[in-house]
Amino acid sequence: MPQIKLYYCPKTCALAPLILLHEAGLKFVTVQPTLNGDQFSEELRLINPKMRIPVLLLDGETITEVPAVSAAIANLAPAMHLMGREPLDSLRVYEWMNWLSGTLHAKSFGPLFRPHRFSDDPAAFEGIKAKAMESINDCFDLIEEKLTDVYAVGGAFTVVDPFLFVFYRWGNNAAGLEMKDRYPKYTALVSNLLQRTAVKTALEAENLELTL
Amino acid sequence: MPQIKLYYCPKTCALAPLILLHEAGLKFVTVQPTLNGDQFSEELRLINPKMRIPVLLLDGETITEVPAVSAAIANLAPAMHLMGREPLDSLRVYEWMNWLSGTLHAKSFGPLFRPHRFSDDPAAFEGIKAKAMESINDCFDLIEEKLTDVYAVGGAFTVVDPFLFVFYRWGNNAAGLEMKDRYPKYTALVSNLLQRTAVKTALEAENLELTL
Ligand SMILES: N[C@@H](CCC(=O)N[C@@H](CS)C(=O)NCC(=O)O)C(=O)O
Ligand SMILES: N[C@@H](CCC(=O)N[C@@H](CS)C(=O)NCC(=O)O)C(=O)O
Repeated sequence: MPQIKLYYCPKTCALAPLILLHEAGLKFVTVQPTLNGDQFSEELRLINPKMRIPVLLLDGETITEVPAVSAAIANLAPAMHLMGREPLDSLRVYEWMNWLSGTLHAKSFGPLFRPHRFSDDPAAFEGIKAKAMESINDCFDLIEEKLTDVYAVGGAFTVVDPFLFVFYRWGNNAAGLEMKDRYPKYTALVSNLLQRTAVKTALEAENLELTL
Repeated sequence: MPQIKLYYCPKTCALAPLILLHEAGLKFVTVQPTLNGDQFSEELRLINPKMRIPVLLLDGETITEVPAVSAAIANLAPAMHLMGREPLDSLRVYEWMNWLSGTLHAKSFGPLFRPHRFSDDPAAFEGIKAKAMESINDCFDLIEEKLTDVYAVGGAFTVVDPFLFVFYRWGNNAAGLEMKDRYPKYTALVSNLLQRTAVKTALEAENLELTL
């Protein structure tokens, strides 16, 4: 059995790999890095110089970035085809993961949560947050347009689904958007995920709720 | 032979897949979408609702996002192992690609090139660009720290290398950084790439230069 450790905090994007670890039925431990204000304490730098989570330690290798961490977990449960079944499905998985991580997370939720990473001038923060909300809305509109099923790719559960789950929760709970009213297809996907044992277990372990 | 079309503009991140198509020795055509000011004209929306390049059309499938486009090209030349040879190499490739695309491109070069996508207030633009430069410098420092070889992953050419090439050029030509003085390992990687026929061909086709 591989030694698996996930660096993780509640409510963060690390919920996606946490769900995947449960899905894959793997044995693992979680570690919650300590915070210093709204940044992680310096100890994390030794593990991940980028000072971000999730970090997956897998038999001594350190893997960062949600799409890579997700792929690493998928490799441990090959029969589940978590990165997609057909080659084209896997390309769609890469495409979704990169866009969600880069455009929705880094470029849109990033400036909403931490405008001070986009300007040193506090007078600019409200404008940055307002523009971030616009960008989040555009991304959610595009997600709704792209979805055709309760799974994002290939008619089956892949690593994209729990990542989409994270952003739906953020839209609902952090950005205060009326996700259920505005995005019926996205809501159906999330509602279907909420039936899965792995998702229930992960949310319970985190003490998190999502009411639809 | 697959039908391959790359939507592409000189000087953009689409240079990375252009290099890969040459590396893989594939037959392809390029299409340069028309611009309307500093945005693409509306026609592109029919191809890619995100209004971005690169876009790869492959036997009728539309693939977007540099990491997914790169993986699609790699699939067409399996013997070259462009996504890495060993499973762990592939995880490192995903990790690099996502971080370069999300943190360096979207979160750092994005606000340098287009501050108006981060605030509607022109008074905030200089502050946003200054902070973007800080973030770019941090990313380049980390790249220098991570590199141990003239290839980013597994001692061999992968899709990560041409993507790193793009950002080196931007650092040098667009951000005006003294890349050669500050980043010897990164410069060695780029200088090694400049020896490759595929890179020379792509730069000539683009009428681009990079003097080290
Ligand atoms: N590109 C990274 C982003 C990771 C990231 O930003 N994680 C957040 C949690 S959602 C974090 O560590 N935040 C702490 C901070 O930004 O200081 C990935 O895909 O894993
Ligand atoms: N996340 C996308 C980003 C693509 C992107 O931003 N491409 C730039 C060229 S470097 C572009 O299309 N710019 C036009 C615009 O931003 O309007 C990817 O990895 O492909």
